[in-house]
Amino acid sequence: MKYGDLSHEELKNILMVEKNKYDEFKSMNLKYDMTRGKPASKQLALSDDMMSDKYIGDCKTSNGLDCRNYGILDGIPEIKKLFGDIFNVPAEQVIAGGNSSLNIMYDLLSAFMLLGTGQGAMPWVRQGEIKFICPVPGYDRHFAITERLGIKMINVDIHEDGPDMDYIESLVKNDPSIKGMWSVPKYSNPTGVVYSDEVIERLAKMKCAAEDFRIFWDDAYTVHMLEGEPAKQRSLIEACNTYGNPDRAIVFASTSKMTYPGAGIAALASSVENIKWFKQIYTIQTIGPNKINQLRHANYFGTYDNVIAHMRKHAEILKPKFDCVIRLFEEELKDCGILEWSNPKGGYFISVDTTYNCASEVVALAKNCGVLFTAAGSTFPYGKDPENKNIRIAPSLPPVDDLEAAIRVFCVCVKICSIEKLLENNNN
Amino acid sequence: MKYGDLSHEELKNILMVEKNKYDEFKSMNLKYDMTRGKPASKQLALSDDMMSDKYIGDCKTSNGLDCRNYGILDGIPEIKKLFGDIFNVPAEQVIAGGNSSLNIMYDLLSAFMLLGTGQGAMPWVRQGEIKFICPVPGYDRHFAITERLGIKMINVDIHEDGPDMDYIESLVKNDPSIKGMWSVPKYSNPTGVVYSDEVIERLAKMKCAAEDFRIFWDDAYTVHMLEGEPAKQRSLIEACNTYGNPDRAIVFASTSKMTYPGAGIAALASSVENIKWFKQIYTIQTIGPNKINQLRHANYFGTYDNVIAHMRKHAEILKPKFDCVIRLFEEELKDCGILEWSNPKGGYFISVDTTYNCASEVVALAKNCGVLFTAAGSTFPYGKDPENKNIRIAPSLPPVDDLEAAIRVFCVCVKICSIEKLLENNNN
Repeated sequence: MKYGDLSHEELKNILMVEKNKYDEFKSMNLKYDMTRGKPASKQLALSDDMMSDKYIGDCKTSNGLDCRNYGILDGIPEIKKLFGDIFNVPAEQVIAGGNSSLNIMYDLLSAFMLLGTGQGAMPWVRQGEIKFICPVPGYDRHFAITERLGIKMINVDIHEDGPDMDYIESLVKNDPSIKGMWSVPKYSNPTGVVYSDEVIERLAKMKCAAEDFRIFWDDAYTVHMLEGEPAKQRSLIEACNTYGNPDRAIVFASTSKMTYPGAGIAALASSVENIKWFKQIYTIQTIGPNKINQLRHANYFGTYDNVIAHMRKHAEILKPKFDCVIRLFEEELKDCGILEWSNPKGGYFISVDTTYNCASEVVALAKNCGVLFTAAGSTFPYGKDPENKNIRIAPSLPPVDDLEAAIRVFCVCVKICSIEKLLENNNN
Repeated sequence: MKYGDLSHEELKNILMVEKNKYDEFKSMNLKYDMTRGKPASKQLALSDDMMSDKYIGDCKTSNGLDCRNYGILDGIPEIKKLFGDIFNVPAEQVIAGGNSSLNIMYDLLSAFMLLGTGQGAMPWVRQGEIKFICPVPGYDRHFAITERLGIKMINVDIHEDGPDMDYIESLVKNDPSIKGMWSVPKYSNPTGVVYSDEVIERLAKMKCAAEDFRIFWDDAYTVHMLEGEPAKQRSLIEACNTYGNPDRAIVFASTSKMTYPGAGIAALASSVENIKWFKQIYTIQTIGPNKINQLRHANYFGTYDNVIAHMRKHAEILKPKFDCVIRLFEEELKDCGILEWSNPKGGYFISVDTTYNCASEVVALAKNCGVLFTAAGSTFPYGKDPENKNIRIAPSLPPVDDLEAAIRVFCVCVKICSIEKLLENNNN
């Protein structure tokens, strides 16, 4: 039942039914917050054993350093090893820090602005206008960092296999002011897209007019599958190395959604040269990370396999929530032609596209009914979705019952807005 | 027995005796590291109970927030309250972060460079040459940050009651490129000086050509007395407020030397307007601090009085070490006229001045004998002590016996270098 094929009368009838449903929901005084990808309490509880004394022992690292005292800038050996296994690079190419990978990204970008990318490269603040490629829809907090630092953002569409590489190659080839690119390469925020190995190869080998071009590869969901094994993916670091651009790749991850968002460990991996430069930066800017929390995490997990086993427990909690949203969309909106949705195999989000120019109204309507969704536009640079279509659904936090109610409201709002737009257009 | 008054012959005799002592020390293959102000193991052990589960309970803050999850940018309420009591400001004027106060300082300075000091002020990178006042001798890591960011440093001597205020006032009055100043106001690194209330008042009320002048007030040793009570000191924040320059003061501290340097909590306090701006900065640059570690610290200490009681235990361990150094200096060098030393009432360092142009040789000679002291010059901007006199002694880490041996070596080295300089000068 494609809404676009229905008559004026049929649409008006559906609209009346949906508006009645909406009023009913409204009278229920619902209060749901679906704005952010927060783990649910049950997920947090999975890691509670980590708080036990036994994981810090005598506070000594494998090489005898006392984690309680000063010393070590780039992370204790055992946490570097663990992240090395996650990133699939030697521990020497890892730096492990505090709890926020976003903070590591901001720090580096800010350092590139003030100090340059290393090896004598000129600070970006002294190179005039600087631009970054932003695959869209993407992660609002990446875009917020870039905007804050005055870096101009260029939208590039994401397809099923990653961002539009033809367009990216054409952009970076001739413009030396394009200094970098954001990416969430696996179970992307919000689309759930897994970049294909071909896309990764092309990113690694493409010719860039800027020698100091850097890819900020936020591998936030690298082991965050919803079932089975994490998607296999070519290592960007290895690919960049293969194609003679070893310093192009900087990869980030954290345990925020493995253990606790409020007390995890974040890390980066990059080329040997980059790591050398980043250590020079960190030597000046910090006394080093919280090492006891690193030790706690390293001892709690022990091995990469244990990380995966732990992530399966998360998946068991998350999968039914994703399934619920998809099921409701199919129930309510299948073949209506008014909403497209992603069906991700991992990560934290479902991305939906309304018809043209409906997204902000849908979010406003839902809010008016007590259900908060991520602001329309926030998945685009400067908060501006040029087609006003994309909305990010974050199913992780609410229990399934609440989630069901919230998505039912969402579907009603989508129907009301879409029909009103159709009727408007018919009238014009 | 002032060495300057001795005859050539007498000096040569002492020199021979001291050189024999030196050779004897050398044959002992000593290995002592006195370079950094690291707490000793016994001090770390004072906080080991903090690792118990009981201090995190159900991971909830006083206002019901789950510390394990996302949320809260500026620190949990109870840690802000505790630091508010330490800083003597309302909790609302505190931001509590990760474990490194140096990192908070770097972050802010870096933000001022890129974004300005707030309220529409122009970013420092767009204001041409920027300068900072650096009281000397001072903390090498402050100077390293300033140097890294390309900020020109101006040396200002520290007297018994703080930096030379006449000079500072004359500098800031006319030069709008002087944007700020470093300070360790209590038990200063390395001099141990406690800034007088008069100095603090003058800093608060002085006219600055730069409207965006900021004092980076690193109150690292605010409760780090060696006996009795912490020195009482006028609040810079309050003074700046009184004199109509509320946004001038930014105060930093951490629990690095209260609990663990490797897993403490750092915080800042400032004016209401500044805090508002800093939160705007942090909103973009991080997901927030490790909140479980904040909860652990807040619950472990509970009150300011408990902090002081805890610091008394540190003092009991530290005081004998400081006493040992002072006793040996008096025994070995009193009235010789070749070394002046501070006798601090708190903090982590004893500052010594050799005679003109001796410091680097003393450090080199001691190193050659297996005893490492902080590099001469490191207490000055750009690592350049114009008179090559100052050396920072860090007595905290070694046990008293080792410390005694290390300081004996140091005294011999001071004597050898000083006498050689005297003999040289006599010959010229």
